[in-house]
Amino acid sequence: MKRILTALAICLVAVLSVNAQELANFNRGRAAPVVSPEIQGDSVTFRFRADYATYVKLSPSWRANPNGGAVDMVRGANNVWSVKLPLPAPEIYTYNFVVDGVAVNDPQNILVQRDGTRFLNMLIVPGQRTENYTEANQRGTVSHPWYDSKVLGINRRLTVYTPYGYENNPKKKYPVLYLLHGAGGDEEAWISMGRTAQILDNLIEKGLAEPMIVVMPNGNANQQAAATLGLPTKQQARVDRNALQSLPEAERNRVANGYVVSLCEEIVPFIEKNFRVIAKPEARAIAGLSMGGGHTITASNLYPQMFDYICPLSAAGSASPEQVAALKKAGVKLYFLACGDADFLFEGSKTLDKTLTEQGLDHIFFVSDGGHTWANWRLYLNTFAPKLFK
Amino acid sequence: MKRILTALAICLVAVLSVNAQELANFNRGRAAPVVSPEIQGDSVTFRFRADYATYVKLSPSWRANPNGGAVDMVRGANNVWSVKLPLPAPEIYTYNFVVDGVAVNDPQNILVQRDGTRFLNMLIVPGQRTENYTEANQRGTVSHPWYDSKVLGINRRLTVYTPYGYENNPKKKYPVLYLLHGAGGDEEAWISMGRTAQILDNLIEKGLAEPMIVVMPNGNANQQAAATLGLPTKQQARVDRNALQSLPEAERNRVANGYVVSLCEEIVPFIEKNFRVIAKPEARAIAGLSMGGGHTITASNLYPQMFDYICPLSAAGSASPEQVAALKKAGVKLYFLACGDADFLFEGSKTLDKTLTEQGLDHIFFVSDGGHTWANWRLYLNTFAPKLFK
Repeated sequence: MKRILTALAICLVAVLSVNAQELANFNRGRAAPVVSPEIQGDSVTFRFRADYATYVKLSPSWRANPNGGAVDMVRGANNVWSVKLPLPAPEIYTYNFVVDGVAVNDPQNILVQRDGTRFLNMLIVPGQRTENYTEANQRGTVSHPWYDSKVLGINRRLTVYTPYGYENNPKKKYPVLYLLHGAGGDEEAWISMGRTAQILDNLIEKGLAEPMIVVMPNGNANQQAAATLGLPTKQQARVDRNALQSLPEAERNRVANGYVVSLCEEIVPFIEKNFRVIAKPEARAIAGLSMGGGHTITASNLYPQMFDYICPLSAAGSASPEQVAALKKAGVKLYFLACGDADFLFEGSKTLDKTLTEQGLDHIFFVSDGGHTWANWRLYLNTFAPKLFK
Repeated sequence: MKRILTALAICLVAVLSVNAQELANFNRGRAAPVVSPEIQGDSVTFRFRADYATYVKLSPSWRANPNGGAVDMVRGANNVWSVKLPLPAPEIYTYNFVVDGVAVNDPQNILVQRDGTRFLNMLIVPGQRTENYTEANQRGTVSHPWYDSKVLGINRRLTVYTPYGYENNPKKKYPVLYLLHGAGGDEEAWISMGRTAQILDNLIEKGLAEPMIVVMPNGNANQQAAATLGLPTKQQARVDRNALQSLPEAERNRVANGYVVSLCEEIVPFIEKNFRVIAKPEARAIAGLSMGGGHTITASNLYPQMFDYICPLSAAGSASPEQVAALKKAGVKLYFLACGDADFLFEGSKTLDKTLTEQGLDHIFFVSDGGHTWANWRLYLNTFAPKLFK
């Protein structure tokens, strides 16, 4: 009897496991499998089944069309539209299809990034450039704790990466990188588009980076968490510019930079209380892209003794000679400034590089090709993370 | 100088913050805002802009069309297609649009569920039924640790919910609910579709449930993690049925139930080592839906002394009189069996209920309307969680 029941259970599980969970899924028709994207040698083919479409195009994030823009796809057997393209250089790209004028994700491709409120399919082209962007063998833990911000008046979600081995080494304490997103992003941007977990996992597994904790807050002062959670935003009190200017400088800075104050006075203590952390400047790094680069510069200006490693990336922000002098005096160990030479913020980075040079603050000005892109921000993280805490 | 720079920085950040991160986003045109879905009183309106479509339909998970199936949408000004429908009863529904035969998500709706490899928009209809499905004020932490499974030969991802207060009460130990998904699901199914974090947050905040940890493993023995991570699956060794039958029963059960063995012999110890847990049967619960209900029954059959709280939901599985007798002898505190009266597995649940009754195992047979749906599984979690660990 028991054997029969076991056998029945096995058969039932076998039947169930080829289907999905809700009953509706059990009744879906079985179309011939469509594979997309398919990388073969130095080409990549995209396919999409559309029975009644007038046209289907591919909208790629890379320059697949010599004229720019979308690429026509051609209807084939079974109304599967396709296009075969030269494989672009190793990198992570995004794309979607355009069907009769409407943007559609590739239903065959489960690899999806979220950029703000948009979901986009990923094309990961393997190669040296991307080898740290795919899964390592030893992986850290990604968690989403919440902290109460008195400064901003809301409960707010963080993303925290703890490295492989954190659980198995209960006495070990770790340095911390605070990693800040740009405008339009949120506390998942560095994980989703930035591949932070994969990059750190790979660098640590290869012995190239120190095992470290990475804290990715939400940099939008009015947000509790990413919009995907559906939480209401908090209307920020409108700052009266005249009233602001009449305040003493320290107070003015606090009012104008609520998020940075919350970061340095609330998030850093929260992390140092709840994770096994080396709570010293030489074990704290701060980095951020675009608006987050501005937050990085502001944090290092307002709290010059807090972080010994400072990495503004494609940054929207600047520092005065006095502020740089304060960092030099505080004994900053690494100032890693990065920007693309085609970035619309490149001039600002060049100005900051000049100020750092004039003030004699030893630093790296890492200039890459290209502009304000996640391709560059992944490259920067992969480049500066090995230089931290050494 | 400093003031000017600060003002410039504020202006720059202001400009950036209305846009998204990548440069491409800065150049998008500004269309008139389309709002979708929009709940007004007892109606809900869906809108979608499609300039060149021949037709647009709404494909709802609820019965919005008396004839069943999709609902036609009508083209209006600016090529915004829309349909206004009676608001369905409070619940979480899913939907997508169909444009010229192609399924398209609602780009205006950031609330998205993932069911296996499909992303679907959510419609949350407020009401008593859903009040625990939306964000509470005090929220627990969701994390994704990995454990090494010797039994299955792979490194595997878990989802772990720790309740609000876990970080602030470093001496407190918690009971644990092991919560298992069904076929087609993965370690994020209960978080994404099941709203586990929201349900537990709300129940705990209201004082209706004990603060508990919830562990959601991946129940597909060949998977390291959800397909969204792009990790290869491990081909499982094909089990020779004849060889299997020739094994001693205990060994046969281990071979046939690798995932359940990993759950009870690897995941439970991993959790009890790495989280502050009351490591006793009276502080362990197991629940699961469909295939996960089968895993729940198998785990309680193979390890009758491990869990004092057992909750098979719409379960694919059964227990013999001897196995039920063993549970009774082990002193199980709650056996909560749940199924919808229209579920295709309802007969199996009725059979199990009969066996439990015949063996004199005190239990609850919770029969709901409807079938094999997440609406039911959310209801069951919201119903049995308050009964655990009391």
